[in-house]
Order: sequence, then structure tokens, then C-alpha cells
Amino acid sequence: MTDFRQRALDYHAFPTPGKISVALTTAAETSDDLSLAYSPGVAEPVREIAANPDDVYKYTAKGNTVAVITNGTAILGLGNLGPMASKPVMEGKSLLFKRFANIDSFDIEVNHKTVEEFVNTVSNIADSFGGINLEDIKAPECFAIEKALIERCKIPVFHDDQHGTAIVTAAAMINALDIQGKDIKLAKIVCLGAGAAAIACMELLVKCGAQREKIYMLDTKGIVHTRRDDLNEYKKLFANNTDKRTLDGAIEGADVFVGVSGPNLLSQEQVKLMAPNPIIFACSNPDPEIKPELALAARADAIIATGRSDYPNQVNNVLCFPFIFRGALDVRARTINDEMKIAAVHAIRAIAKEEVPNEVLVASGESELTFGRNYIIPKPIDSRLLPAVALAVAKAAVDSGVAALPLPDNYMR
Amino acid sequence: MTDFRQRALDYHAFPTPGKISVALTTAAETSDDLSLAYSPGVAEPVREIAANPDDVYKYTAKGNTVAVITNGTAILGLGNLGPMASKPVMEGKSLLFKRFANIDSFDIEVNHKTVEEFVNTVSNIADSFGGINLEDIKAPECFAIEKALIERCKIPVFHDDQHGTAIVTAAAMINALDIQGKDIKLAKIVCLGAGAAAIACMELLVKCGAQREKIYMLDTKGIVHTRRDDLNEYKKLFANNTDKRTLDGAIEGADVFVGVSGPNLLSQEQVKLMAPNPIIFACSNPDPEIKPELALAARADAIIATGRSDYPNQVNNVLCFPFIFRGALDVRARTINDEMKIAAVHAIRAIAKEEVPNEVLVASGESELTFGRNYIIPKPIDSRLLPAVALAVAKAAVDSGVAALPLPDNYMR
Repeated sequence: MTDFRQRALDYHAFPTPGKISVALTTAAETSDDLSLAYSPGVAEPVREIAANPDDVYKYTAKGNTVAVITNGTAILGLGNLGPMASKPVMEGKSLLFKRFANIDSFDIEVNHKTVEEFVNTVSNIADSFGGINLEDIKAPECFAIEKALIERCKIPVFHDDQHGTAIVTAAAMINALDIQGKDIKLAKIVCLGAGAAAIACMELLVKCGAQREKIYMLDTKGIVHTRRDDLNEYKKLFANNTDKRTLDGAIEGADVFVGVSGPNLLSQEQVKLMAPNPIIFACSNPDPEIKPELALAARADAIIATGRSDYPNQVNNVLCFPFIFRGALDVRARTINDEMKIAAVHAIRAIAKEEVPNEVLVASGESELTFGRNYIIPKPIDSRLLPAVALAVAKAAVDSGVAALPLPDNYMR
Repeated sequence: MTDFRQRALDYHAFPTPGKISVALTTAAETSDDLSLAYSPGVAEPVREIAANPDDVYKYTAKGNTVAVITNGTAILGLGNLGPMASKPVMEGKSLLFKRFANIDSFDIEVNHKTVEEFVNTVSNIADSFGGINLEDIKAPECFAIEKALIERCKIPVFHDDQHGTAIVTAAAMINALDIQGKDIKLAKIVCLGAGAAAIACMELLVKCGAQREKIYMLDTKGIVHTRRDDLNEYKKLFANNTDKRTLDGAIEGADVFVGVSGPNLLSQEQVKLMAPNPIIFACSNPDPEIKPELALAARADAIIATGRSDYPNQVNNVLCFPFIFRGALDVRARTINDEMKIAAVHAIRAIAKEEVPNEVLVASGESELTFGRNYIIPKPIDSRLLPAVALAVAKAAVDSGVAALPLPDNYMR
């Protein structure tokens, strides 16, 4: 582990500090080049944009740029370490945007005192970008922040910790329910955790058919139930009218466990209490709520997913956010709405059901991947994700009336 | 001109919209790469920075990043066309930062209502960057904005329209005064224009030895004089106790004319009224206050400079801003102070006095460049500028106590 730690630090320190830089997309060598790139030539696109504001997409990088914006209040699972400590994560996100979807992304870390100040700051700079990916902002502030920014910005604003997690979780979950022969409408779902990811995952599962009253959410004080008076407005939507109070009570007969909480919070005894053919998503990172080998030892009929790459069924946001932004940018969607999110869910889950091309096997380092309990969701390095998810999202944006552009001919073919 | 217009538009539209993109500085192909770049590896530099805040310079791109920030209120000479129309200029600035000094730069366009709101917005995001280049912000707001941001930010904040222009103008002026055998302390200086660049140029010339009472500044209402009650606090510093009221009155016997105003505002008759061996900087872009051929026809003993590349003596900000930031970033200066600006002035002017290497002649498309009335300042494409100016600036930062790091061994050698 020490060796990995040093490798990770060296990776960030060399060859230059950090992971991203700026590159030029035009020639800038000769005096003639520079006379086009800057004064006097640059006055021409300035005049065009002043006359036709949409031309900013024609003559500048805006339309392919996504800002990754944070306040550092919920960095990975490490907590509130402040904006500067979050910077490697934000640059990492920018790296993934470029690597997976050729989106030009850079990071902005925001200092602020109030939610209003954060919202004002970000909305004042939002026009500079084609989209905004909010990241590592703690709940419950993240909900009000995202809502206000969506209202005030003319570009897509997407809090990946909520919706990226929810989309990938839903894609994997629907496939797992299929394999286990369960109907999402009848499934009893336990959600351990009540933060940004938990709330967003459950909201999206509801939109995909799950019944709100069959969801048991737990925070650090136990089950989120209707007699509690300490619930914020987001948890309140999941307050269950139950006399159970603990995970032990909730887990009994549960079809689904979703963990977005912390390491080792689900025991083998609790797993044994679940319904036949249970589904266990232990997504706490890096250490899951229960180790897959322990869960399987308790229940051989379970489907297990985690956030880790060293077990089957990795639920990883990178399966979604580069591609949902790719689709949104390409038809210039003014927002990322539920139709687009659900289109992403089904595009991702459909890929897992297709035959896996050899190059994907090679890139993933796998000898075989066949849809089933050990392969419910595509691998992060699956080159089919970009065209499939971007197309589905772009199409949903156009069909739901939030796109400024039509679907390009032969888009992603 | 139509052809140039179309070339400029095409340059911005192809191969992709705009001029800048993001590039990765680390490997991001394999699953192993990604486990270092993002979760779980990225947690390691996060922890280091949380424990040692300065490590943000070690593990992220912050230290080589300059944001180009504007509100679009004074775009080139085109006026207040709003933040979006300014975007090609801002991207152009980022392109020049990369091209000339390998600084990673991107642009932020800010919407705001009040000066305070602009300052709050920019200072809230400032920690994301190693430096901030303010651009195309109209006077007099630009003065208060820059002052407030310098106070509130821990990184260099530099309004290039003011100080870049002033530094390059001062470098050229001191050389021109040498050639004309004039003492800056005795020179009568007429400054046509009283905006950001004009005020900054005159302030810097005063710091280089010019006498404030020998400066005659003119705005659209004529001479800035002590009996006027319509002067903002910045112009007031140049209010001259004179009974002259017009350019005709001011120009009589003037040693120096600096134009930062608009096209064709200086006549041949006015040039004829200047002192022997006059110096005329007609810097309005793209059309100068007087065409050089007309000025020379009126006064063969004049030294003429403009902002144009198609005449000798181009006063161009690109001679300064990439290199002053390079020097400031490399010793992690917390500000760009007068010592650093004056060091840049003298570093730039010294280059013009040196023998010009053949590769600089070739790059500049010149057969000969010898210090004298047609070559008072280096050409923008002069590879000697980077090491000389960055070294002078970095050294001045260290010597004046604003640098967090010592001068690197063999820096820029």
C-alpha cells in the first residue's frame, strides 16, 4: 500500500505538477498566425458574436468545455478538507472527461460562506462554459446549490455525485433485478446512507419504477421514518411509516441493499436475513459495506456489486458522466433532464447484455464477459459506451425539447 | 480586407471551434493509470495537500495556470460588447500565454452588476489558479477592481491593458528618449487618452523618472487640468495646472506624444508644433492617431511607434505579459509589484540594444535590425524575451521579498 501511495504521489508530481494542461488547436507560430489568433484578426469573431450571440459556439471553445466545480466540502469519502485539497480530484475528473469523451474540462475550486454566495459565484461565470459538472459538495447543501444553478444557468448543470452515481447504480440494478427475476415495483429496498448519492439513487430508482414506500433509508441515527422530526426536506421524502428503527429491522426480507455509507457496516448475519436471490450493492469506496467474498459466503444466491475495480460489477461514475455531457453538448441541451438521465440508464444497461467485442475484453484484461451475475454492467474501459450513451442522451434531449440543435446526421455511427 | 476577415473567421471556426483545448500531462490509458489519476490513487495527493497546503503546487497544475478574466466591457477598441463577445480575445490571450511562455491558461467571462460583485466572484475562485490576468475591463472600474483583487487574492493579479501596455510603452519610450538625446526628467509629455492604458502608462513613466507636472493628459473633453470638477480620482492625479485647454495647446513644444485614444486624432500640423527630435507613440489599434508616413512627412526627426506589425517599432503587450507571469509563477510571487514591472521594462529595452541573432531576424522576416530610430523595441517573435524578462522579473520578486521560492539554480540559463 505504501508503494501504491508513492506511485500515486509520483503520478501527480511528474513530469509536471498535476494532470492537465492547455493545448492549442490552431497554428500559432508565425506573425501571420498570431494576427489571426489575436489582434487584429480576433476582432472579426468578436463582431460576429456581438451580432449573433449563438456564434460563440462557432468561434470559441465554449461548446466543448465543461467546468468541474467544487467547494471541497465532501472530497471522495475523506470529508470536508477544503477547496484546495480537492484539486487533484477535480483535475482527475477533467482528465476523465478528456480521456473518455474528448471534452475539454478544467477545474474551479470555490471559496464561499453561504450557499447563496456559491450559487452567485458559479452562475456569474457559467456562460464561459458549455456545461458545469458539480463535484464533491456535501449534502444537503448540494441539493439547493444544484437546483438554484439549474434555474439560473443556460447550460447543463449536473452534480455527478448525485446523478452520475444514480444513473450507473440504476443501470446495474435493473440488470441485477432481471437476472434475479425480481420486479422493481415489488422490490423491498434498503438504502444505507442518506447523503447526496443515496437520495439521488433512490429518487432515480423511483423514477424507474421502485415504490417509495418499499424503500428503507438509513442515516447515522437509524431508519429514516415518519415519526422523526430531525429530517431535512430531502430525507423526508423517504420517511417510511414503519416501526422498525435499525438496519437489522430493515434488512429482513429485503430484496435489495444499496450501501453508500462506509466500510464494513453490513454483516454476514444481516445478509442472511435478506429475501431469496438478494442484490447487494456495497458501494462505499474504497472499502465496501461488506466484502464481496463475505457476502457470497453468507448468501451464494446473491448478486454483488461494489465501487472497486478488483471485483466483478464495478459501479463507477465514469460509465456515465463523460458520455451524458458528450450527448448534451452535441445537441446543445440547455439542461440534463430526467428523460436524458433515464436514456443513459438504459443505454448503459443494454451494453452489458450485448456480446463483448474482443478489443473490450483485451482492454479490460478479461478472458470472458457474459451477461450474468458477475457481469451486470459494462467495464469502465468499454469503447462502446461513448457512442451508445451519447446517442441515447442526445436523442432524449432532442425528443424532450431541451436541445437547441437537431441530432447530427449519422451521429456517433 | 474581406479576405482577411474570412481567414480570421475560418481560423476561429476550424478545425474545431475556438483556439484552445485541454491536454493530459500523464498517462491515462490503462485501468492502472486511471486508478492513480482518480480513485483510489487520487486520495493520496488530497491527503498531502490537506496536511500541507503548499503541496497544491506540487501535485496539481495550479502553479502553471493563469486565468484570463474579463467582463467584456472594453473589448479591444470595440467597446462594451459584453462577456460572450469577448471570448475570442480571451482565448487568444490564453493562446499567447501558451505559445510564448508555456503557461496553461484559460478564460473566464464574468457576468455581474456591481464592481463588488465582480470582485467577490473572482476572489472566490482565485485559489484555483496560479495567477490572474484581467483583460478588457473598462476604466475607471478596472482600477478599483484590480486594487480590490490584489488585496484579496494570494496570487498575482495583473490587468494587462494597464500594466502590460505601460511596461512595453515605457521600455520603448526610454530607448526612444536615449536615441533622441532627451532626459525623461525634462521631457514634456502629451498623453491623448485617459483610460486604463493611458493612466497606467503615465504612472509608470513617472516611476521611471518623468515629472508629473510636465504631463498633459487629454480626455474627450480636452486637457485634464486642475480647474475641472468632472475628473475621477485617477485622472485627478494628472490634473495639470495649465491654462491650455486643447491638444493644439498641449502639443506645442512637446517632446513626447503618447496616443492611446482613437484613429487620426493627431494632425500633421500638430506634429509640426512639437519640440525638435520628437517622439510619437500612436498606439491606437488598428488605426493609429496619425499614420507613421504622415508623421514622418511632417517631421523627419521624429521617432514613431505604433501598435501595428506592419510598421517599425510595434508596441505590443505580448512583449511583456507571458514573461512577467512566467517569472512571477516560477518563484511563486504573491503579487506583481512595481519592482517587477520596472525590471521587465529594463529587460525588454535592453534586448533591443543587443545584436540581433540570425534566427530572430528570420522569425521576424527582417533582413536587418539595428538599435536606432526604426528599432527601439524587440519584435514580438523574439525568443530572447522569455529568458531575459522572466529572469529579471523573478529576480526582482525575490529581491523585493514577494517570492515564496528562491530563484532556481541556473534559472533561464
